[in-house]
Amino acid sequence: MSETVAEVGEFRLIERFTRHFGTTDAVLLGPGDDAAVVAAPDGRVVACTDTLVEGNHFRRDWCSAADVGHKAAAVNLADVAAMGARPTALLAAVCAPQDTPAEWLEGLAIGLADEASAVGAAVVGGDTTRGDQLTITVTALGDLEGRAPVTRGGARPGDVIALAGRIGWAAGGLNVLSRGFRSPGALVGAYRRPQPPYAAARDAALMGVNAMIDVSDGLLADLGHIASASGVAIDVDTTALPVPEAMRNAAEALGSDARRWLLTGGEDHALAAAFPADVLLPEGWRRIGTVADGTGVTVDGRRWTGPTGWDHFATT
Amino acid sequence: MSETVAEVGEFRLIERFTRHFGTTDAVLLGPGDDAAVVAAPDGRVVACTDTLVEGNHFRRDWCSAADVGHKAAAVNLADVAAMGARPTALLAAVCAPQDTPAEWLEGLAIGLADEASAVGAAVVGGDTTRGDQLTITVTALGDLEGRAPVTRGGARPGDVIALAGRIGWAAGGLNVLSRGFRSPGALVGAYRRPQPPYAAARDAALMGVNAMIDVSDGLLADLGHIASASGVAIDVDTTALPVPEAMRNAAEALGSDARRWLLTGGEDHALAAAFPADVLLPEGWRRIGTVADGTGVTVDGRRWTGPTGWDHFATT
Repeated sequence: MSETVAEVGEFRLIERFTRHFGTTDAVLLGPGDDAAVVAAPDGRVVACTDTLVEGNHFRRDWCSAADVGHKAAAVNLADVAAMGARPTALLAAVCAPQDTPAEWLEGLAIGLADEASAVGAAVVGGDTTRGDQLTITVTALGDLEGRAPVTRGGARPGDVIALAGRIGWAAGGLNVLSRGFRSPGALVGAYRRPQPPYAAARDAALMGVNAMIDVSDGLLADLGHIASASGVAIDVDTTALPVPEAMRNAAEALGSDARRWLLTGGEDHALAAAFPADVLLPEGWRRIGTVADGTGVTVDGRRWTGPTGWDHFATT
Repeated sequence: MSETVAEVGEFRLIERFTRHFGTTDAVLLGPGDDAAVVAAPDGRVVACTDTLVEGNHFRRDWCSAADVGHKAAAVNLADVAAMGARPTALLAAVCAPQDTPAEWLEGLAIGLADEASAVGAAVVGGDTTRGDQLTITVTALGDLEGRAPVTRGGARPGDVIALAGRIGWAAGGLNVLSRGFRSPGALVGAYRRPQPPYAAARDAALMGVNAMIDVSDGLLADLGHIASASGVAIDVDTTALPVPEAMRNAAEALGSDARRWLLTGGEDHALAAAFPADVLLPEGWRRIGTVADGTGVTVDGRRWTGPTGWDHFATT
């Protein structure tokens, strides 16, 4: 049997975590002191934080510990990428019941470290504490490399709306798992480990994208955030968002609506952006809509009547 | 009746939070986008994260919402201060049951913002999510102002160990509250709102202290961290740590040991440091011990046989 965190104790547990964290040139002082020190070469640091809660954002019978680590890192790294920044470091605060297997938490640490490492970042610190519910809060830091941050507020009438990365797959995967199935693997895998288009985000930032957002509340909800912050109207062209066959088949088998997965599913951590109309979109981006004068988001010119995304405290 | 977070909804709740957050010159982009942007003038950023869990670190019948906000900020700001850095920004991730009064969470936000503001920092972002247990994870960022970070590893034989801030008061306050009492107010207030000696930490950094730590696990445990990281032995002189009369009286009334509160109580977030022997200690610091060749921590030359601090997963 695996030891629990109570048996291992906090200090040995932290040792078991930190040996996986690796380092980079940006890590000036890593884990083990009161705080870490991270390079911020252009005199600014991008910072965001997001929490995953067991039973709400993941289930241990649906996802491996490493999956949860990858996801907890990815949701934050995608936010940094959406600002047009290069992720540099993660901090992870883990709250765990005393009977949590230490091995599970070590798997979590490996997942966090691997996802960070894939974008050239490292885990530089954290906290472990006891709680009734397994909760992972990650903070990500990033480097704008001298560029202006890419906000949600820069879209202008005439811009093209483009998408990088997958949408709807994670929502489909969650639907599959919720019904007690484990396949198709493409959907379930997308739910377990989102793959934010980090490289596409950086390319967009380098070429001067006007606005960008991490699609975590669902495409329509997040385009709504761009529309609202920019004071513009956005129309989505669904002919540019064909439902992939594997997704359509899975949705039909489950009696679900694949188009709804595409338009309102978060958790894939795609990126949506507004580009000047005359630019050649960088690799990985596809045109899915347009920006005009006005307010709100329409789909093929009409108001969308379905749910527009996630409210984390909603009761439905 | 106050509305719950479920009734208010995530987006309105975030609005109710952020209106209290204020700003500073260091806040280049505040709450509302995928991430914040904070100034890091010398090209480095100090970062740490710590979690408070209801029932473990606070109780709503013992502490006001603002108290919890102050404490969640203070525990992190003290870590930044212990690195010799000036705190610049906080991010706060709040996980709350759906029936949490929105008013309570607004009080929490006010407490966070006020504690940050007191040291010239601001809350720049965060996350709200649903969970079974009220949990607050704060990340603090700081600016080293061109100085080297003050680690735990710089103490040298011959150094003086000094303390800034209070110790034992919060442990006493917790003891008082645990027995069902609400006074003496000096102890209970210390538990509710730690007062880390931020200014003393900065003075120490400015004059070139050798090692510094936030006393959060208890004085002896945290001096143990300095001893271990520095490869030295530390002796604490208890004649320099007289038990204040109010604390002695409270401990006697409760059948507790005030000396144990002093030596092993965390949560006051005092700072302990190793200074070169020949320096005049800055204001707010008092000499409490010495550094020598060797390993470990002794009290008046002898091994301390009591518990040495907190293990957050310990079962006792």
